[in-house]
Amino acid sequence: MVYLFLANGFEEIEAITPLDILRRAGADVKTVSVNGNGLEVEGAHGIFVKADISISEVDVDSADMLILPGGSRGTEGLKESEPLRKIILTANESGIYIAAICAAPTVLGELGLLKKRRATCYPSLAGELIDSGAKYKNDKVVFDGHFITSEGAGTAADFGFALTDKLFSRQETDRLRLSMVY
Amino acid sequence: MVYLFLANGFEEIEAITPLDILRRAGADVKTVSVNGNGLEVEGAHGIFVKADISISEVDVDSADMLILPGGSRGTEGLKESEPLRKIILTANESGIYIAAICAAPTVLGELGLLKKRRATCYPSLAGELIDSGAKYKNDKVVFDGHFITSEGAGTAADFGFALTDKLFSRQETDRLRLSMVY
Repeated sequence: MVYLFLANGFEEIEAITPLDILRRAGADVKTVSVNGNGLEVEGAHGIFVKADISISEVDVDSADMLILPGGSRGTEGLKESEPLRKIILTANESGIYIAAICAAPTVLGELGLLKKRRATCYPSLAGELIDSGAKYKNDKVVFDGHFITSEGAGTAADFGFALTDKLFSRQETDRLRLSMVY
Repeated sequence: MVYLFLANGFEEIEAITPLDILRRAGADVKTVSVNGNGLEVEGAHGIFVKADISISEVDVDSADMLILPGGSRGTEGLKESEPLRKIILTANESGIYIAAICAAPTVLGELGLLKKRRATCYPSLAGELIDSGAKYKNDKVVFDGHFITSEGAGTAADFGFALTDKLFSRQETDRLRLSMVY
């Protein structure tokens, strides 16, 4: 199971693009509202999406991957969620893939998970990532252990294909890229 | 006003990417459900989006641009909507921009609007577009008069930036591309 976490203010391209790509590949992805009330989540550009489940329904033991989209307000919402912090720390201990894009890698930085790890994020937040101990790399997608990080909306497709690479195969990713006219 | 039309089965990347880009540029974009009942629309990959208005609320006289995302089932839904056909034909007579991506250019082809027009679409549908009289071009984005067409999910960002080029300026598009890390 792949869990993609949505807080109000999530960046829509950064959430929808990897979700679409992963579901095309056949991944079982659940979108998760971290809001207390209801499943409707409002994106950074006024797009309302209905999440599949609420955060209380996440079963971290069944997780293959967690995904955190960016958006500055959305990332603040992720940081403020105590249940999400617990899920991320448990997933980290189990070595489950944790993927974050744009501002969201700073969620992992704040939890102290990126110390001495290669990681990337939205370029203007590089200083914050470095302050949390990460080895910042100016690349579209950066891998280190079970962490996968990416720069922003413009790299959301590369991020999505990096996730299908990890969960499926390079062949499946290549087939998808071609069928989607990337 | 820009209207983006959503039928059940719409391709999520093809709808959300240009919508996000246009709203970042400051465009007033309304998402429009062509479903009879309610504003909730389900995308091709199970993503539920709440549209801003229903099709009966569209004021074509105030429109600067119509946008049709693809997805094979979504495109069928667009073709079956009698109110949408009327809106497109009225917009065409007024020379309002009409933009379509992936399978959706065939909606325009079926209405006879692409005769002798340069246009593109999802590559496997090229024959259908040619049969409707269009001059098919194998490019990411194709312009002819007030028509803007594009190939598919992988060209959705190029499509979105082509729309900001038309409604705003190349400078605004370049600024956006940079800020979004494209």
